[in-house]
Amino acid sequence: MLDNMEAIELLGWDDQGLMPAIVQDSTTRDVLMMAFMNAESLRRTLGLGQAVFWSRSRQELWHKGATSGNTQRVLEIRVDCDSDTLLLLVEPAGPACHTLETSCFFRTLDQFGAQPRQY
Amino acid sequence: MLDNMEAIELLGWDDQGLMPAIVQDSTTRDVLMMAFMNAESLRRTLGLGQAVFWSRSRQELWHKGATSGNTQRVLEIRVDCDSDTLLLLVEPAGPACHTLETSCFFRTLDQFGAQPRQY
Repeated sequence: MLDNMEAIELLGWDDQGLMPAIVQDSTTRDVLMMAFMNAESLRRTLGLGQAVFWSRSRQELWHKGATSGNTQRVLEIRVDCDSDTLLLLVEPAGPACHTLETSCFFRTLDQFGAQPRQY
Repeated sequence: MLDNMEAIELLGWDDQGLMPAIVQDSTTRDVLMMAFMNAESLRRTLGLGQAVFWSRSRQELWHKGATSGNTQRVLEIRVDCDSDTLLLLVEPAGPACHTLETSCFFRTLDQFGAQPRQY
């Protein structure tokens, strides 16, 4: 067994130091979103107990819900067989999606042309 | 509404023409794996009704389970709000993981140093 900080060093970060992190609601089991983490965002996630990602567009740490209040309490972090993808089991304080849908995956492929509901 | 073939053209493929695809068991709601798709693999998935990915390591189409028999019948394909991640709801014919675990996410972060069970 490794401690979490040792494990973080050994994960299969890509050549940009990133890894996809899938976020699943631990209660409803809905897949809520996918975002990227780097080692620092994973350390912050562990320290804070809430999901912290790396925003590729803004090139900065992104504490999910810091502005909106829709934080995600992280109950469990799982690693896939190739050690290059994470799965976070969370208890969300609100919608995961910026559209205010519960999950970012609110459209099927054939609804893709449709607009999100207006809130 | 768009038809699926039109939708495929409009999705947010990355600069390598790829997109992560999360695979979830439609019954147990377990997240089984994450793999990459390109437009051709998504077209084949729709045509076959089974998951076909793009293997980045082998640089070829990868019909999941073609060798092992552990195919994944695709019941629904969902697209996230940014149109750059897919979620496949599937009925798996067997384990998703090459280790024969049901899900590739069989380890928590602190079990990361541990070896998979031997079969």
